[in-house]
Amino acid sequence: MKIVDLRITPIAFADPPLRSSYGLHARYALRTVVELVGEDGIVGVAEAHGGEQTLGDFERSREAIVGRDIYDLARIWLAIANTLGVATAAADRSHTYLLPGESRLDVPLRVYAAIEVAALDAIGKMVGRPVCDLLGGRVRDEVPFSAYLFFKHAGGGGVGDDERPDIWGEALTAEAIVAQAIAMIAEYGFGSVKLKSGVFDPDVEIETMRALREALGPRVPLRIDPNGAWSVETSLRVGAELAGALEYLEDPTPGLDGMAAVRRGLLASGIDLPLASNIAVTNFADVPEAVRSDAVQVILGDHHYWGGPRAVTQLGRMCETFGLGLSMHSNSHLGVSLLAMTHLAAATPGLTYACDTHYPWQHAQDEILQGGRVPIVNGAVRVPDGPGLGVELDRDALARGRERYDRCGYRLRDDAAEMRRFVDPTWSRVVPAW
Amino acid sequence: MKIVDLRITPIAFADPPLRSSYGLHARYALRTVVELVGEDGIVGVAEAHGGEQTLGDFERSREAIVGRDIYDLARIWLAIANTLGVATAAADRSHTYLLPGESRLDVPLRVYAAIEVAALDAIGKMVGRPVCDLLGGRVRDEVPFSAYLFFKHAGGGGVGDDERPDIWGEALTAEAIVAQAIAMIAEYGFGSVKLKSGVFDPDVEIETMRALREALGPRVPLRIDPNGAWSVETSLRVGAELAGALEYLEDPTPGLDGMAAVRRGLLASGIDLPLASNIAVTNFADVPEAVRSDAVQVILGDHHYWGGPRAVTQLGRMCETFGLGLSMHSNSHLGVSLLAMTHLAAATPGLTYACDTHYPWQHAQDEILQGGRVPIVNGAVRVPDGPGLGVELDRDALARGRERYDRCGYRLRDDAAEMRRFVDPTWSRVVPAW
Repeated sequence: MKIVDLRITPIAFADPPLRSSYGLHARYALRTVVELVGEDGIVGVAEAHGGEQTLGDFERSREAIVGRDIYDLARIWLAIANTLGVATAAADRSHTYLLPGESRLDVPLRVYAAIEVAALDAIGKMVGRPVCDLLGGRVRDEVPFSAYLFFKHAGGGGVGDDERPDIWGEALTAEAIVAQAIAMIAEYGFGSVKLKSGVFDPDVEIETMRALREALGPRVPLRIDPNGAWSVETSLRVGAELAGALEYLEDPTPGLDGMAAVRRGLLASGIDLPLASNIAVTNFADVPEAVRSDAVQVILGDHHYWGGPRAVTQLGRMCETFGLGLSMHSNSHLGVSLLAMTHLAAATPGLTYACDTHYPWQHAQDEILQGGRVPIVNGAVRVPDGPGLGVELDRDALARGRERYDRCGYRLRDDAAEMRRFVDPTWSRVVPAW
Repeated sequence: MKIVDLRITPIAFADPPLRSSYGLHARYALRTVVELVGEDGIVGVAEAHGGEQTLGDFERSREAIVGRDIYDLARIWLAIANTLGVATAAADRSHTYLLPGESRLDVPLRVYAAIEVAALDAIGKMVGRPVCDLLGGRVRDEVPFSAYLFFKHAGGGGVGDDERPDIWGEALTAEAIVAQAIAMIAEYGFGSVKLKSGVFDPDVEIETMRALREALGPRVPLRIDPNGAWSVETSLRVGAELAGALEYLEDPTPGLDGMAAVRRGLLASGIDLPLASNIAVTNFADVPEAVRSDAVQVILGDHHYWGGPRAVTQLGRMCETFGLGLSMHSNSHLGVSLLAMTHLAAATPGLTYACDTHYPWQHAQDEILQGGRVPIVNGAVRVPDGPGLGVELDRDALARGRERYDRCGYRLRDDAAEMRRFVDPTWSRVVPAW
C-alpha cells in the first residue's frame, strides 16, 4: 500500500505542575499526532514529541515518506536520515542536559520512530493483526507499568476552559508523596512505584523513599530518579542509605563516567544496587561504553527516541545478551503512545521491569482516542487484540487538542523557564545540584 | 491463521567430496524440509539441517507448534524451548568441535529457526508481501554472495542413478584451486572468494591464497577459513604472511581465548587483519566475551542456528553497535535456504560482507523448487518480489529428495567417518592440527 499522505497535527493537553531536576512542567504538554494515509484509505497513527521544531522535522521529512510503500521502512529510514542528517557525536546525544524531545541530535530517529509506529498500525489494520504480532508475537497479554510519583505544586494543568481539576493535589513533602502513591495505587493498581526526585535536598528525598517503603510495605518495588541531580559522592550516600529499599537507582549522576564511578563505589561498599538510565544511555552508540564500564545495569528504552519499536526489540536482545535489565522510559503522553509501548513491551521478552508512564497525570478530557482513556487495571495495560494499535482517533478530540495547541502559547518544552516563572525567578538547572 | 499441520520431509541430495578440517563431505548431504500448513490452505516452507536427530527434534516439537496461530512466534519459541530444553553452557555450544547441525545444545534454536522461516513464508503469502518486508523492509535489492572454494577429490557426489557429473573436477593443488575459482567466477560472477582450508600444510594453503591473489588481481576480496585447524602460533604466521591479501581471516584457531591471542599478536605486529568466526561465536551467549576480549571482529551469522531471521536482524544491530562486521555462514543447502538468507540479508543493514553459500556445489537435478535453481548473477541473488520467500516447492522433486534420503544410508553428517572411509583409514580430527 502506497503512502499517499502524511498528516501532522500538533496538539496540547493539560499537564499538572510536576517538578523534576529539569524544572517545572508547563500547564500544557505538547505532542504531535502523526498519521500515515494509505492509498486504500487505511490510516496509521503515532504520537511523537511536540512543539514547533518537531513539526518542522516532520514537514521536512514529507518527501522521504509520502509516495513510498508502507512496508518499505528500512528505506524510509535511510531517506529520513539522508534528509535530516544523522549526528555522529554520540556523547552529545545525552539527555543529561537536554529534555527528551528537545535534543536536535536524535531528530531523525525520533521522526522515523513515529513513522514506524504509524506504519505498523496501518499494516496491522491491513492484515487484521495487532502490532505486537508484526513484531514477532507477544510473550505477555498484559504489560505492567509503574506508578510515577512527582513532587507537585497545586493545580491540575491547563488554563481557562482547559483548566483541569487538581485530582492529586499539592505534593511537596514526604507525607504528601505517600498519599499520592496510595491514591495512585488505589486508582490504577500499580505494583511498583517510582519517584521523580532531584527536586529537594537528598535527605528529604531519602526520607520520602523511607516513608514510601514504610507505607507500602516490603513487597512493592521502589525506584528513585533524580535525573542526574547528584554528585558521585551524593549518589553513593543515597545509594547506601536506600540500597535495601530500591529495585534500582535511576540516573543518580550525570554521564557514563559518573554512573560508572557510582557503580564502582557501591560495589566497593558491598552494595549491588542496579543503576538504571535513560539520560546517560539514550542511543545504541552509548551501549558499548555503558557495558564496558559497567555504568548501567538497566536501560530504560523508549521507542520514541531509540528509533522505533523494532529498534527497541533489538535493544531488548542486546540487554539479554549483555546481562542488562530493560525497562521503558516515558514522557508526558496520551493513549496512542501508551498502546505503542504496550504492543512493543508485549513483544519484547527481555523486558524485565514494569514500564514508566506519565499517563495517570493526564486527564480524560484531553484523550484523543475513541472510547476515551486506555484502562490501566492492576497496574497493567491489556494488549489489544484488535488490528494495529487497536484504537482509532477521535477526530473531535484531536481537533480540540489542536485548538489547545493553537492557543496555549507554548511551542517548545522549557521546564526551566516555567520554573523561573512560577517558582523561583533566579532558578537555573545545575547538574549535579547536590 | 491457525497452523493445522507440520510436515517434516527428510531429503538427501548429491554432494561432492569436499574437504575441510572436519574431514570429507559424504556423497549425500542431508537436509530437512519443514512445512507449516495453515487452516486456509496456505503453506510456508523452510530448510533445516538434516538427519535422524533433527527429524526427531521436529517430531518432538509438533505439539508446541500445531494448533497455534502462525503469528504467535514468540510463544511458539517458548513452547519449543520448553519441550526441548534450553542449554545453558554457552561454551559448549561452540562449533569448533561439532559440525553445525550436529550440536545437541542449540537444538531448540535450530527447530525454532525453521519454524520462523516457514511462518514468515506463510505470512508473506497470506498478505502478499515478500519476507524481507516482514522483517522491516529491504536495504538492498541484490544480496552478494562469495565464491566458496574447496579442496576437493574427484567426483560430483551421489551414487548410482543419483551420481552427478563432476563439474568442478579434482582440486588438491594451488593450481587446481585457481582453476576452480576462475570457473566459479565465470559461472556465477562472484565478486569475493573464500577458501575452505585447514586441509593441507599451512604453507600449501598460503601458496594457494597467493596464487589466487595473483590470478584474480588485487581487487577481489579473499578469505581463508581453516575451521580452527591452526595453533595460535601458526595463525600468527599465516596472518602475517597473508595480511595484505585477505579481507578477513576466519576461525584460524579454536576458541575465543585462542582467537583473542591471535588478534593481540597480529595487532602487536602492526597487522590489523579482522578475524571472523562462525565456530567460536555461534550464539548470543558468545558475544559478550568475544567483544570483551576483541577475539572476533566479524561474526558470520546463520539464521539456521542463531534462532531465525529476526534473531539475525538483532545480531546485525548488535554488530553495528559494537563495531563488528557481519557476514553469513552456510552449510550445504538448496534454494529454500538460499532465499531465506537472501530475504534476511536484504533486511539487515548491518550486513557488511558478501555471504557464504555452498549453493554452487549442488546440482540442478537435486533442487526442490518449481522453476529449478535460484539464479546467482554477478555474484548476487536478486531479492524476490513475490509473496513469502517467493518460491514454491516442486512436489515431485521433493519426493525424489525424500527417496534419495531413504536409500542413501546416511542418517547423520559424519565428515570424519567419510574421511576414514575414502581418504585415510587412520584419520581423526585434531584441532589445532598445525
